[in-house]
Amino acid sequence: MGVWMRSIAWDDESQQLKIIDQLALPGELRYLEINSSAGLADALTSAAVNGAQASAMCGAYGLFFASREVETRDPAVLQEAVRKYREHIMAARPTGYCLRDLTARIVHQADAFEGEVDDLRAFYFRAAQDAAEQNMKAQRAISRYGAELIHDKAAILHHGNSGGLAGVGNGTALGVIRAAHEQGKRVHVYLTETRPLLEGSRLTAWELEQYGIPYEIVVDSAAGYLMRTGQIDKLFFGADCAAANGDVVNSIGTYMVALAAYDNGIPAYAAFPLSSVDFECPSAENIIIGERDQADIFSLQYRGLPAAPVGATARNFALDVTPNRLLSGLITDRGVLYPPFFRSLSVLRQFGREK
Amino acid sequence: MGVWMRSIAWDDESQQLKIIDQLALPGELRYLEINSSAGLADALTSAAVNGAQASAMCGAYGLFFASREVETRDPAVLQEAVRKYREHIMAARPTGYCLRDLTARIVHQADAFEGEVDDLRAFYFRAAQDAAEQNMKAQRAISRYGAELIHDKAAILHHGNSGGLAGVGNGTALGVIRAAHEQGKRVHVYLTETRPLLEGSRLTAWELEQYGIPYEIVVDSAAGYLMRTGQIDKLFFGADCAAANGDVVNSIGTYMVALAAYDNGIPAYAAFPLSSVDFECPSAENIIIGERDQADIFSLQYRGLPAAPVGATARNFALDVTPNRLLSGLITDRGVLYPPFFRSLSVLRQFGREK
Repeated sequence: MGVWMRSIAWDDESQQLKIIDQLALPGELRYLEINSSAGLADALTSAAVNGAQASAMCGAYGLFFASREVETRDPAVLQEAVRKYREHIMAARPTGYCLRDLTARIVHQADAFEGEVDDLRAFYFRAAQDAAEQNMKAQRAISRYGAELIHDKAAILHHGNSGGLAGVGNGTALGVIRAAHEQGKRVHVYLTETRPLLEGSRLTAWELEQYGIPYEIVVDSAAGYLMRTGQIDKLFFGADCAAANGDVVNSIGTYMVALAAYDNGIPAYAAFPLSSVDFECPSAENIIIGERDQADIFSLQYRGLPAAPVGATARNFALDVTPNRLLSGLITDRGVLYPPFFRSLSVLRQFGREK
Repeated sequence: MGVWMRSIAWDDESQQLKIIDQLALPGELRYLEINSSAGLADALTSAAVNGAQASAMCGAYGLFFASREVETRDPAVLQEAVRKYREHIMAARPTGYCLRDLTARIVHQADAFEGEVDDLRAFYFRAAQDAAEQNMKAQRAISRYGAELIHDKAAILHHGNSGGLAGVGNGTALGVIRAAHEQGKRVHVYLTETRPLLEGSRLTAWELEQYGIPYEIVVDSAAGYLMRTGQIDKLFFGADCAAANGDVVNSIGTYMVALAAYDNGIPAYAAFPLSSVDFECPSAENIIIGERDQADIFSLQYRGLPAAPVGATARNFALDVTPNRLLSGLITDRGVLYPPFFRSLSVLRQFGREK
């Protein structure tokens, strides 16, 4: 694949949103064609679309669908309906900072918008298109900055899915790896399967296949073994969001992988656009992590047999917090930041938003 | 279940070894009836029996089967055949210290044995029976010593399978938890599923169901999240073997779980009989960990779909090393040992073998 993969793309002709159905991967590359706010909410709920930024972009298009569906001539009525829809999709992603922040900003801007309902609908459409465009741009910048951290013949550990499927462009951490590969650097990627959703073995592995990047899958708990035995040079992962001090919220298990990197003197990098930083949140320590249905834990079979006794119960945490002390650098769309992150993030926020 | 579960038991009437088939669990409690050296080797190779001590006991019975099958009147010929068989089963478990050590000791004692081939065969049978008896005794002692470390209403994290299935008696770490439960202490066990073989969700969960101990399953990578959010009081696991300095070899992922415990000030205990300590091995750092077939990684399905792309490759490490610095105590059949373990283990070896 020579072109950027578009996991989420607006199709002008059919006036639909086309989304790669992550639930069909890696077996089948199938697109969902979404043309209603309900269809979009379903995709978010079923995890057909996953990844903080991909979900946020979908949310923006969802606002547009919602605005298109309200039959009214009163902008206030339209706004009220959009606001309700936003609350509805937020319930599917309680920890989704990017989704919450992006959709809040768009609704807020729409509140200030003066015009007829059709103008408002056009505004929502443009806002979604702009957000997707900016996300692609940010991901390209992340790839460019981050690729400089990867040397030739690097052995890289990656956790979660942070590729094109998790955004609308090149992805974040996986985009960095891909950019290094396209610069001709020979990289070997060890990727964790990333239970319970298997984003690593299902999605990241599938993406690496498309890009022709050599990889090997390991179970999540083998990451530490690989690091202790000198088989890893660097650790990369994405982020669902980050706090003002550089604490990172990402797929469950990121904390343990980052801790193992720290214990073995292996640099660990989180890659995300600056828009993922919740500057109102001084530290991620107290963020409440949503629990998912335990069906994800039991949805797997081992050699065709159930993986747990009938009636077993499980706890399913989707995300965890990696404290900033375990991170060597943050790869953002405005450059690579180094500790102390509270300082480097705050400087970037004040002076570096635009270049 | 009020009695000790016997995962491995000699049946006098049929002159067979009865083994719980771990591959049929948790769906079905099925016994394999083994009456030949080849059948026993198969059970070790297929992982129908797993766990360091259970495998060692099986190995001892295997030597007996091998001795019974040689048609000779020359004790030297019999010994040669047994020795060859031992090498054959060792190939199935390259890192299996307990299997290697126990079978080596038995063959060595048999070398010094004077008598006819039938006496030698009887010796092998007695040696296997004695080993099983001693293992049960050791596991009972471990349970007794370890249970003192568990307070009422303790929230315990457990990794791997260290229960009755992994030995011939009560198990090691899981035996400790069970003993505390039987003392009336209210314990809640969080157990990792322990990829790739799912010893946690398949076997440990099944055992806890039998014992009526409340538990919840989490993915391996969620252990750190549970600990960071204050939901765990203590961490327990077993060991395949240990070095003279207290480094512990156990199911893959133990290192990362122990590291997360250390990072959160949560006491971590490894439980194993003193016979699992390789005193010739000063540190486990350089132990070569065998790799298993990658089929274990791909043998699972997610929502009925493949968990990885066709043609994906994986690395499958069965075990890892947990450095002694991460451990708060070692629960042995001679008492609980505290750091520095090089000293406490060595004292026990010199003065404490028998009580």
